[in-house]
Amino acid sequence: MTEDVSERVVELAKRRGFFFQSNGAYGGVSGFYTYGPQGATLKDNVEDAWRDRFAVAEGHMEVDAPTVMPEPVFEASGHLDGFDDMLVECPECGENHRADHLVEDDTEIEEAESVPTEEVEDLIAEHDLVCPDCGTELAGQPVEEFNLMFETNIGPGSSQPGYLRPETAQGIFVEFPRLKEYARNQLPFGVTQIGKAYRNEISPRNSIIRVRELTQAELEHFVDPEEDEPPLHRVEDVRVTLYPADEQEKEEGGYVETTVGEAVEEGILTNDWVAYYLGVAEPWYDRVGVDMDRFRFRQHLSGERAHYAADCWDAEAEIDGDWFELAGFAYRSDYDLSKHAEHSDEEFTLFKQYDEPKRVERATVDPDMSYLGPEFGGDAGDVADALERKAERDRAAFDGEDVTVETDGEEYAVPLEKTGFGVEEVTESGEHITPHVVEPSFGVDRTVYTVVAHAYREDEVDGEERSYLDLDPEVAPTTVGVFPLMDKDGMDERARDIAAELREDGHDVTYDDSGAIGRRYRRQDEVGTPFCVTVDYETLEAGTVTVRERDTTEQTRVPVEDLSETLTALRDGDRTFDEVLVAADAE
Amino acid sequence: MTEDVSERVVELAKRRGFFFQSNGAYGGVSGFYTYGPQGATLKDNVEDAWRDRFAVAEGHMEVDAPTVMPEPVFEASGHLDGFDDMLVECPECGENHRADHLVEDDTEIEEAESVPTEEVEDLIAEHDLVCPDCGTELAGQPVEEFNLMFETNIGPGSSQPGYLRPETAQGIFVEFPRLKEYARNQLPFGVTQIGKAYRNEISPRNSIIRVRELTQAELEHFVDPEEDEPPLHRVEDVRVTLYPADEQEKEEGGYVETTVGEAVEEGILTNDWVAYYLGVAEPWYDRVGVDMDRFRFRQHLSGERAHYAADCWDAEAEIDGDWFELAGFAYRSDYDLSKHAEHSDEEFTLFKQYDEPKRVERATVDPDMSYLGPEFGGDAGDVADALERKAERDRAAFDGEDVTVETDGEEYAVPLEKTGFGVEEVTESGEHITPHVVEPSFGVDRTVYTVVAHAYREDEVDGEERSYLDLDPEVAPTTVGVFPLMDKDGMDERARDIAAELREDGHDVTYDDSGAIGRRYRRQDEVGTPFCVTVDYETLEAGTVTVRERDTTEQTRVPVEDLSETLTALRDGDRTFDEVLVAADAE
Repeated sequence: MTEDVSERVVELAKRRGFFFQSNGAYGGVSGFYTYGPQGATLKDNVEDAWRDRFAVAEGHMEVDAPTVMPEPVFEASGHLDGFDDMLVECPECGENHRADHLVEDDTEIEEAESVPTEEVEDLIAEHDLVCPDCGTELAGQPVEEFNLMFETNIGPGSSQPGYLRPETAQGIFVEFPRLKEYARNQLPFGVTQIGKAYRNEISPRNSIIRVRELTQAELEHFVDPEEDEPPLHRVEDVRVTLYPADEQEKEEGGYVETTVGEAVEEGILTNDWVAYYLGVAEPWYDRVGVDMDRFRFRQHLSGERAHYAADCWDAEAEIDGDWFELAGFAYRSDYDLSKHAEHSDEEFTLFKQYDEPKRVERATVDPDMSYLGPEFGGDAGDVADALERKAERDRAAFDGEDVTVETDGEEYAVPLEKTGFGVEEVTESGEHITPHVVEPSFGVDRTVYTVVAHAYREDEVDGEERSYLDLDPEVAPTTVGVFPLMDKDGMDERARDIAAELREDGHDVTYDDSGAIGRRYRRQDEVGTPFCVTVDYETLEAGTVTVRERDTTEQTRVPVEDLSETLTALRDGDRTFDEVLVAADAE
Repeated sequence: MTEDVSERVVELAKRRGFFFQSNGAYGGVSGFYTYGPQGATLKDNVEDAWRDRFAVAEGHMEVDAPTVMPEPVFEASGHLDGFDDMLVECPECGENHRADHLVEDDTEIEEAESVPTEEVEDLIAEHDLVCPDCGTELAGQPVEEFNLMFETNIGPGSSQPGYLRPETAQGIFVEFPRLKEYARNQLPFGVTQIGKAYRNEISPRNSIIRVRELTQAELEHFVDPEEDEPPLHRVEDVRVTLYPADEQEKEEGGYVETTVGEAVEEGILTNDWVAYYLGVAEPWYDRVGVDMDRFRFRQHLSGERAHYAADCWDAEAEIDGDWFELAGFAYRSDYDLSKHAEHSDEEFTLFKQYDEPKRVERATVDPDMSYLGPEFGGDAGDVADALERKAERDRAAFDGEDVTVETDGEEYAVPLEKTGFGVEEVTESGEHITPHVVEPSFGVDRTVYTVVAHAYREDEVDGEERSYLDLDPEVAPTTVGVFPLMDKDGMDERARDIAAELREDGHDVTYDDSGAIGRRYRRQDEVGTPFCVTVDYETLEAGTVTVRERDTTEQTRVPVEDLSETLTALRDGDRTFDEVLVAADAE
């Protein structure tokens, strides 16, 4: 393939109705794209294939949560404080830029994202960095943290801020207390969600690769870290291309081509759950049409990884020499659930039964209400509850003369002897544990883009240049194009009937009677339709139609009564087009 | 059915994982709901059934547009100015209320939405209306127009306001200039979209009936008002319950039970396109499980209807004696496209070829640039363009000595003789027309709610009260439950194998081995699973399983080798359970 496939893909995507920048009539808005008829169907098919593999086949539950969530959720998740990019504004033209990107572009520093803003300001001044748009010096301009969440207000006034979720995951985490009931309080269980997420990027770019409104497919697999293990044997023979952190840090580092099983054995993949999902993901990407020669799993460098993540790998694809992330696979420990437990009034735990009951020490209180009542009035009950929680969680607080507890933001000191504090030995049948989370997180738009870009082909047919999409029938927007040779003599009626029958049998059919037959073939080639059926005079006389295969452009005649079954066999890979050709010749 | 079905449905929906208020751990946020595993699948199935009927079967295109759109779109659409509710705040407790609802609740006025705010203030004072929450008098409190769109900012700063779309439709209208190309510039064509829409309701209520984040399924059918006609014959025999405006205005008005064809003939349905889509919608609602005895089409009263809408009917369903809107069917004329044409730089027209070329008069200009140049400087080109547009659209403007045009908000007067104005006779092969729009707009959440509420049943089985959902297999989250009688002696393995085989054959299967068999049946009854299969000792010995039907709870034995085919026939309605019973008895 020649260079700059991206440009041609973007052009084809717009012309043929895959995707294009939205709001063109109003000059367009960066980072927002509309899927046209072909793209919407392709995207739907990719989502269905994901659901089939990551929800249905794994036995996970799917949910559908709102995209607008209230502020406390993001206080807990850390997005309110930490989901920032560094922003610098040009004093002349007013354009906003990612300050860390400017530094990376013009200095030796490769990863400026984690450099403090003051240092970035210094670097901008030291290196005389200028606005890429107008050339004005940026020295002295403040570098600010810009939160990437879209903010809004829920209800009238501004008393209840809300945010467009930056990931679908939070809609699963916050509902854990209810979701665990649907799983009948048994670990492990997985919850999936396919839906919109939003990131108010400072500079969106690369078509649907970096957008402000995106579609994610995420799986949160809740597991007992001490007992649950993934069925690694199912994927141990899956071949993977790995790019471990230590290879990335070497001068001449390279890929490790191996199997999932070997990578686990050799300690390249240190987390079995992450290893399992890499093994599931690799054949899935192959199935939807990502070119596995331009696909790899790259381990996060220690600087990239969140502090709570035990291990993290990205699935990456290459287009025009650039690699970009398609999905992330992270072992997130109990971070997310613990944070929500801290910030909310709910328990984010699950009761785990011991095999045998255990004798354990337990701290209890029995507050003297005849003291608490007069002392704290209406708050006495709350203070007693707070003492109980304190005893459970922080036994050391009962070491002094007074015990201080907080409720509704107020502090109350209670003399130790009035708390009725004591430690008893009890028999416990189990304990409350906070599950760990394994998170495969997929970008749907990026998958769609990669599938189209990796399927893009150019060749020559009858001396004319042709471009086509070598899409797999599972994801192709249309699987069969049906054309009447001409719009007369009953060929059109017959073709419409055939189209209707094929639809009945579950084929995705496009009917097209406009323009020369060659142009109709080209149109279907460009949207990746694998097979075209033409109804001509011979159909009326002999009851056969022409079936044409997209990639080879070869044609053969098939009796109408065998058509649907032949197309099904071709679509499902049960028969090759060559076999159909040979069978037709034999007759 | 007993009263208060809603309450039981809401309780069941929460307990069994259909839907529940989101963010419960943080106290919940009004108007936001999460679909649990059962609900997400049911909703998906309803969306698929809609897509199948309104997109695929009609040959329309589906698109997927962003939910965040820039301000100019809503300036054009009228939402920025007109998408308001009347708000009054309680001076004591701070609670916000719909002022028009308070007036309707306590006065004779039935429709207060269109009453001016000052008059509503007067009515509140006159009738001594009080805050429903705390009883404080509201007289003297200002009544304000509150815009129901969620506002946000696109990119850093506040220079580019954006809004969460209040309807999916605008994502189709703004892209008309591109979408018409995908339709090869031929009318009629339809574009559908299923997606989120947002309304910042002052007081959300009734579970998922009035929410702030909703899912719509909309179809915009672009037609040539002079030539295109719907295929009314396909639906003329569909029986409908109509509630026309004049019947609603009568003291003792009632429904008109008729067919679509007769209603058109008798002038009850005055718009053929609206009539056609009512005829398509009625069987569709029946198909997904809405009780057609609690379903009607209600015509908008003249006060309800937008000024540009030629006619508008709502599909309505009844639950607990209340009727609410499920969908709207409006003939919107050229309103939407004309508004976007006015506000943007794009053409929202389509070139319509005449059958025969016509000789027509055309007004043209040939501006004297040697005058315009020195006079208007850099704006001269824009002024010349504006003159050209003026000549096309408003020939009368060239009747005086000066012609005044506007461009970029500035007015320019040009002496007539410098415009080169003239009228010539030309041959035209066609004209640019603005298509009209027919809009069937469906609320997906409300459909899901109605389907569940109308399927809710209570009866007694073996002396115990039972509740179940009489869901159609097409929308039921699960079609087959597979249970081993006990978790031993190989019954569990055999049951798992059977479940896997049924899944292969396209059945939606739930495997359940926890708890007594009776409880497992009840669980499936409550989520509406039509058939359950139990693997017992006889399965191991004789190769037959028990198949149980949900509504009758009757059971019969079926050989494992016939199981999949039997379940398919039952699911698709090709065989009744009685027929299966009889066949089993005969053996």
